[in-house]
Amino acid sequence: MVFASYNQEIISLDELKIPVFDRSFFFGDAVYEVIRVYQKKPFLIASHLNRLANSLKEMSIENVPDLRNDIYQNISLNDISEGMVYIQISRGSLPRSHSFHNLSLKPNVLIYSTPFFSHPAEKEASTGTYAITHEDIRWHRCDIKSVNLLANCLVQTKAQQAGAKEAILIRNNQVTEGSSSNVFIVKNGVIKTPALSSFILPGTRRQFLVNFFKTHEYIVLETTIKKSELYEADEVFITSSIKEAIAIVAIDGHNIGHGQVGPIALLARQAILEAADQAAQD
Amino acid sequence: MVFASYNQEIISLDELKIPVFDRSFFFGDAVYEVIRVYQKKPFLIASHLNRLANSLKEMSIENVPDLRNDIYQNISLNDISEGMVYIQISRGSLPRSHSFHNLSLKPNVLIYSTPFFSHPAEKEASTGTYAITHEDIRWHRCDIKSVNLLANCLVQTKAQQAGAKEAILIRNNQVTEGSSSNVFIVKNGVIKTPALSSFILPGTRRQFLVNFFKTHEYIVLETTIKKSELYEADEVFITSSIKEAIAIVAIDGHNIGHGQVGPIALLARQAILEAADQAAQD
Repeated sequence: MVFASYNQEIISLDELKIPVFDRSFFFGDAVYEVIRVYQKKPFLIASHLNRLANSLKEMSIENVPDLRNDIYQNISLNDISEGMVYIQISRGSLPRSHSFHNLSLKPNVLIYSTPFFSHPAEKEASTGTYAITHEDIRWHRCDIKSVNLLANCLVQTKAQQAGAKEAILIRNNQVTEGSSSNVFIVKNGVIKTPALSSFILPGTRRQFLVNFFKTHEYIVLETTIKKSELYEADEVFITSSIKEAIAIVAIDGHNIGHGQVGPIALLARQAILEAADQAAQD
Repeated sequence: MVFASYNQEIISLDELKIPVFDRSFFFGDAVYEVIRVYQKKPFLIASHLNRLANSLKEMSIENVPDLRNDIYQNISLNDISEGMVYIQISRGSLPRSHSFHNLSLKPNVLIYSTPFFSHPAEKEASTGTYAITHEDIRWHRCDIKSVNLLANCLVQTKAQQAGAKEAILIRNNQVTEGSSSNVFIVKNGVIKTPALSSFILPGTRRQFLVNFFKTHEYIVLETTIKKSELYEADEVFITSSIKEAIAIVAIDGHNIGHGQVGPIALLARQAILEAADQAAQD
């Protein structure tokens, strides 16, 4: 059984029911985070909570008290060693009305955590995976981690229908993100990832890796990446809290580089795993 | 008390709780309709149900049995004379996972209806109302009536903060919609509304009025409308199931025409009300 907490009430996730007036339901008026737990510890929790606070601010949702204790408590309650924590905060509860002008709403907070029985990224990290490209049909505030995720769901499903695992999104001929990941490419030793903007989620692994590469004196550019650069890259890889770093060895049926997992993708994953291991020891 | 039906179970709306795994909650993976009830009858119900079926199809959500009886039953249960019916259909219930590839999900159906104690559009229709313009930050499938409505909520709230009632959305310098309405303009006797595309919801009142104007030999064009045409119009009005047709007498602080409700906006509303009255007699 998975224990969830909704507004601090503890209940089995399978049995949890949410009041229909929680604005998640009528409008997707909520933000969320997914935090990877390694060795019982939520990794990069500060980065996740900072991003959550920023999502709340950008949505003008009232901030909530520090969730750190609730998160640790839930991990402990569910006895998670390897797994993830999910946090969703909606603007509050209200009969259906688009506008929240002059309303003082109390946010609703959901927290739950689930175990991983095998390492979710391990197999794909060793073999690499396939992607399609797809027009980025999402809204213009992808920097906010909201639950308006329909575009992501539709595009992710299309990728799977095409025998791939991820869609790489293209807006105005430029790479933005994967359907639930950030994207890096490598060409002639230069590592590139799309620069932050309102069209890009500031991924915690993305930022971790940019810092890591800089520290280790790789050339890493936060810049624009044209769609054509994808196909011509030596390596392409995607990053997320759960996926860590996974090489994309073919896109739209075209091999990337030699069609094998490349050294920078492997290094990226190793860096994440080592940092997670280190953090768990601290 | 308002009676709701969730998967055909009847319950008070105030007490209704939705299983957290209903994909409305994590992804906004649901579509909806709002149907105006005049004199106990849901107006243009066929248009609404057709659009609902189209939304389901475009989202690859399994279709549901004809809802007509359930809708009539709910209106009757709530003893609605003047009011609205709300219908929301989600893809189904599932532990959180973006992709729905190869999953056979049973849609969840919510229906409720609420009374209007005064005519919701009457006062604004007589005085007209104010609008701001705002960049259309929504996704690229606005033809699907989904509950991914965060952009609409944020923009509608901005309009109200600016002392206006509606935001008119501009994409690539062209008018698309209001924050929860379609837009018409009139200039030198020519009526224009944005042509249907994936950036426009095919409004039931929009279509009704296009047909009405054509039948009555007005010149009505479904075409592109530049932002500048808004300010230079003789009349601007918005339409929706609830708003019917309401004149916008000022946009971004600039008067439209003489800053008063114009004859075509009045005619539009009258046409809707007469058709609703006629339908209620049938």
